[in-house]
Formats: sequence, C-alpha cells, structure tokens
Amino acid sequence: MSVTAPKGFRAAGVAAGLKPSGRPDVALVVNDGPSDAAAAVFTTNRVQAAPVQWTRQALADGRLRAVVLNSGGANACTGPDGFADTHFTAEHVAKALDLGAGDVGICSTGLIGVRLPMDLLLNGVTRTVAQLSADGGPAAAEAIRTTDTVSKQAVRLSADGAVTVGGMAKGAAMLAPSLATMLVVVTTDAVADAATLHRVVSEATRLTFERIDSDGCLSTNDTVLLLASGASGVTLAEAELTALVTDVCMDLGKQMIGDAEGATKDIAITIKGAASEDDALEVGRAVARNNLLKCALYGKDPNWGRVLAAIGTTKAAFEPDELDVAMNGVWVCKAGAPGESRDLVDLSGREIAIVADLHAGTAEATIWTNDLTDGYVYENSAYST
Amino acid sequence: MSVTAPKGFRAAGVAAGLKPSGRPDVALVVNDGPSDAAAAVFTTNRVQAAPVQWTRQALADGRLRAVVLNSGGANACTGPDGFADTHFTAEHVAKALDLGAGDVGICSTGLIGVRLPMDLLLNGVTRTVAQLSADGGPAAAEAIRTTDTVSKQAVRLSADGAVTVGGMAKGAAMLAPSLATMLVVVTTDAVADAATLHRVVSEATRLTFERIDSDGCLSTNDTVLLLASGASGVTLAEAELTALVTDVCMDLGKQMIGDAEGATKDIAITIKGAASEDDALEVGRAVARNNLLKCALYGKDPNWGRVLAAIGTTKAAFEPDELDVAMNGVWVCKAGAPGESRDLVDLSGREIAIVADLHAGTAEATIWTNDLTDGYVYENSAYST
Repeated sequence: MSVTAPKGFRAAGVAAGLKPSGRPDVALVVNDGPSDAAAAVFTTNRVQAAPVQWTRQALADGRLRAVVLNSGGANACTGPDGFADTHFTAEHVAKALDLGAGDVGICSTGLIGVRLPMDLLLNGVTRTVAQLSADGGPAAAEAIRTTDTVSKQAVRLSADGAVTVGGMAKGAAMLAPSLATMLVVVTTDAVADAATLHRVVSEATRLTFERIDSDGCLSTNDTVLLLASGASGVTLAEAELTALVTDVCMDLGKQMIGDAEGATKDIAITIKGAASEDDALEVGRAVARNNLLKCALYGKDPNWGRVLAAIGTTKAAFEPDELDVAMNGVWVCKAGAPGESRDLVDLSGREIAIVADLHAGTAEATIWTNDLTDGYVYENSAYST
Repeated sequence: MSVTAPKGFRAAGVAAGLKPSGRPDVALVVNDGPSDAAAAVFTTNRVQAAPVQWTRQALADGRLRAVVLNSGGANACTGPDGFADTHFTAEHVAKALDLGAGDVGICSTGLIGVRLPMDLLLNGVTRTVAQLSADGGPAAAEAIRTTDTVSKQAVRLSADGAVTVGGMAKGAAMLAPSLATMLVVVTTDAVADAATLHRVVSEATRLTFERIDSDGCLSTNDTVLLLASGASGVTLAEAELTALVTDVCMDLGKQMIGDAEGATKDIAITIKGAASEDDALEVGRAVARNNLLKCALYGKDPNWGRVLAAIGTTKAAFEPDELDVAMNGVWVCKAGAPGESRDLVDLSGREIAIVADLHAGTAEATIWTNDLTDGYVYENSAYST
C-alpha cells in the first residue's frame, strides 16, 4: 500500500506517454489531512532540477497538500522555460484539487537537459486526479520507476498500531550521498508539525539514504519528502517517529541497492575502530567508490589490497600497519599485511560483508553499495538515461 | 631507446618467472654517471608499498645509481617481511654492481598483498645485471608491462641536440591523481643537481601524470623517477629541462590513457573560465570520475546532463545557469540549458573533447581520461590484478 497505507492519503499512477515504453510515468499523492505538515531533504548537487527548486519554495511554509511525480524526464538543466513548466504543472494540479500552487510539490526523474512534453504531462496529471484513491499507493510507486526493475514500497506500524508510516521510492543508479539518487515519498498519519518532520526526515536520511552509494554519482533531482496527515490523531514521541521513518527509509534503500543497475552483489562496508563517525563514513565511502574493488567483487575475487588502497586515499585517523580487513568473516588482512588465506573467502552469494578495523577509536558506520558489472556499463551506455 | 637514449645509461629486461604468462617481468636501469643525481614523486596514498618506502629513503641523499623494477607483484601490504624483501633485493643488486644498497631504487607493480617469490626475483635480477647494455631501454620497458598491451617509451632532444631525455612507463588502470598509477623512469644526460631535478620532476608530474585520471583509483606503488647522468656535460636552463621532461611525461601519459584497460575513447576534459587553476582541476576531475558520463561516452551518447551533474558536485566558483558545455565542438549546453542539438555531436571517433566554460574567471586546465566499458569490468573482475 506504500504511501496510501497511512490514513488521510490518496494516490494514483497513470501512463501519460512520457516514456517511449508506454509504461506508467505520472503519479500523484494527495494528503487529505486534517494536517498538511511536510518536510524534505533535497540533493546537495549545486545543479538542481526545476522541480527541486520549485518544491523547496513550496515547502518554505512547512506545508504540502499534493505531490506530482513523473518519470520519463528530469526537467533538469532546462533553464527558465523548464522552471515555468514545473510551475505550470503545479498550477494545473492545484486548480484540479482546489488548492494553491504553493501547496503542490513536484518531482521529476529521467533524462537531463530535455524539456518535458507538457501536453502529455498535463493530460496525465488530469487523469491521475480522476483516479485518486485510498489504495492507489502501488500504482503511484509503479509510475515513478525508471530503470528500476520493480517498484519499491515499505510500510511500518508504531508499537501500538496507532500510527502508520508508508513510503515509495525510485532509484536504481546515480545512487550517491548525499543523497542516494532517488525520489522518495514517505507518508504518515501521525500528528507532527513541520519542524518535527524536518528533524525526523533529516535524521532518517542521514542514517539511510546518505549511506547508500551505488556508483558515486550525485543526481540533480534527489528528493526525499515526508508528509504527515495527522489523521490518526496520535502524536508519537519524536524518537519513535524517527525510528519508524528510518526503518521505512532503510527498507526502501536496501530495495534500491538490491535493484541497482546491473548489480549482482549487495555489499555492506562496515568501518570499525574509527576515531569518529565522520572518519568511518569517509573511509566507507572511499571503499564503496573504488571501481577496481567493485569489479573484483563482481568477479568473486577477494582482492583485499584494493580495500587498503582505497582506505589509503582518505584523511581518516589510522596507521597503515594496523589495518585489519575481513571479507565475509575471513580476516584476510591483519596489521596491514596478509592474514588468513584469501582462499577461505566465499563470495559466491549475493550478500558481501566487508569489515575494516582502523584501530583508531570506537566509532563505526556502514555504507551500502553494489558491484560494478558489464550490466551497469550496458544500462548506462546503450541508451540515454 | 627510452631510458637508454641519453648518454650514461644502461638497462636490461628479463623474464624471471614472476608472471604466470612467462613474459618479461624484471628490469634494471643503471646510471653510469659521471653524476648520479636523482629525484622522484611518489604516490600520495597513505598505504604505501615497501618499494615506495624503500626508494624514498634511498633518495634522501638525492642520489641513485640503479633502479630495479618488477611486474608480477606489487609488494604492497606485505608488512615488515615485504620491506625486508625489498631491502634484500637492493643489497643483491648493489653487491653485483659494486654499489651501496642505498644507491638502488626499487619499483614493483602487480597484485597487492602477496609476497614476491624472492628466489625467482633475485635470479632474474642477476640476469639483468649480466645483460645490461646501452641499448637495453626497450627490453626494460617491455619488462615493466602489466596489463599494458604495449610498452610505453618516449625520447626528446634539447633544441641544440646536446641533451637527451628518455622515459619508460607502465600503467593501464588505477590511473588517478595524484599520481596516475604508474611506474615511470625518466633519464637525462643533462648536468643537474638533485634539488633542480626535484623541482623539474615535480612540475612535470603536476602538469601531466597528475592530470590523467583513468578510473579514479589511487595506487599504493606510483613512482616517477628522474635520473641525471650528466654525461652530456651540458647544463640546460631549468625551464628548458622542465619543458623537455614535461614533454616526455606527457607523451608517456597519453600512451597510458590510450592503452587504459578496456578503453575505446580518449577523452580530454577542458575546464575554461575558472576562477582559479585549482577550481578548473577540481571540476575536471569530478567530470572525469563520473561513471555515468564515462558509460555514456562509451555508448557514443552526448549525454551532457551528466557533465553538469558532475560539475554540480564541486565547490568551484560558478553559477549553474551560466554553464556552457561543448562536446566535440558542439555547444550542447548554453547557460545551463539546452543549446545546439545533441544530434550534431559526432562521438564515433576515438578522440573526444569536452569543454566546459564556468564563466567565473580566466583560469583553465585539462584532465585526460577514458570511457568506462565492459572491457574494463572484464579486465578487473576476471582475474586478480
């Protein structure tokens, strides 16, 4: 049920013809309230798509009633005309729903540098309005897919069952901190003000999407939206709401890594013994971005030297001759030198766990990534995405 | 003739059995003087191979009489035993040539985390000593190849023909600043002291190898050595010597990019209109490391949005709506929005020129890279390298 699992939300998804494949490509999520509090995290890329610029403005008052999402075109690097297209789309939705344009967020994904076919898009938007329903979450999740092979949805309930958090995501490449490239809409029927939601979505993103790094590339369109209808009438402790939203985001994030373009391995890189969490994250990201390591893991080769070479590029606190590295439980590197035999490492499964101990402190963090494969090259070279 | 083109140098290369393929894998370069001034630039990776640690020490006095280079094993992450292996190799060469061990530099390349088979290596070194000759440069260049499909050599003469600079290089992946991953030995018969040579090799490297970025990975073994025999009896102006050495390094660097693993495109990324050279370099490197762009170029797809997405990740001075981007002469992006039609761009040839104008100043720099292909994935996944 994804975004329509919590009370107070309706959604829809239709095929508007933006995708040459004819698959669904326009989604609409509406918050019927009583509250319309909302918050978001956006890409840190300085080149930001028109919908990111628009939605940031629309959210300035901490309120959002509806979100239009389209695949089939990112509307990024499209200049003032592209921004006008986004503005016009918001006006169009607002009119149909009897809202102000500033109550409508917009998210787009697809090829950069191409204007959207506005006639097709607006026609699709009109049809989503007509099809809005309280069980439209899956259809909306379907319509935001790009190269995703499956739609991504997640739902969690609070301990007492009184509050629901639901989410949908798209993202299968250009996953990078911060953020992993993606469009994400998370909804809840909890009662929460915009300031609380902002803290919640920021913390959840920091612990999940910002620690996913599929290919080191940072998109122009990344958006994580959190909408609260308040329809449950229940106010959770902020910590519990944060935990629920984080759980939904982690679930969605793992679905994205599992579906990353061409990937055959899901790789968790845990850095232990770091002097600080920042050090652990810096080292984890450096390892996750090492193309040579990612190719080796695709080839089921426990080439731990590439882990050390990646660690050595960072500014984190460590001594090279104190580094330990384990691959799937085998400590192939001890004190910066060969440890247990690499022949003991079994990399035949999809899950790979790499642990590096810096022996410089007690902080720890995990970054999730995947392997680099000919499938990735094919998906990103054979056609424009 | 590479390293033996200048007067005062002998070299040799033999097959010692370090490589399973049976190809040549041990090289020796000897400087017969009268001078033995030398300087080097080493990898900035904090995880440094034993031969890097050794050669840095040996060069502390600004002198080097001989250099042993081996492929078939990097001797990196091998602990104190690996360092002892390097030390012992230097002692072995020194004894055969009637030198001190501190007169001998060592360079190794190959798999990380594995000890070298010392009996094979020392036997090979003994044979290189026996085969040293004034025309042994090509044999030495052949013996340092790893996945290089051809040996890399270059020679330049000073304007009056009195001074010669020669060089050899190996490197076909893990090319990253700073340095591009490589072993390079440059020789000259110019008269120059170690301090001058240090300035010359640093500047030449800064302008060439540090601006090559094949796959963003930084090796544990990168070494660029410059040896001066003084056998010509001629002292060049430092600027002329720098220009000659830079020319040789650029030639070798372009040979490396042209032979990068699996590459089908040689890509020059020029950043113009930057507020500073550092800004231009930061932006150029960000573009050169964008896997999505590199895949698109492999697919001959002028996907300029990926250039802007990469630029947007940097801290360089620019405004997103002022960015211009050209691909092979076609300005596909003007003022951050679509410019000339991408259909006009011809990416069918091997050479691709990308120019981005930041409109933030007058500084400019070029980074050289290549595309990301299934061939690269294959070479780095199918076996340990």
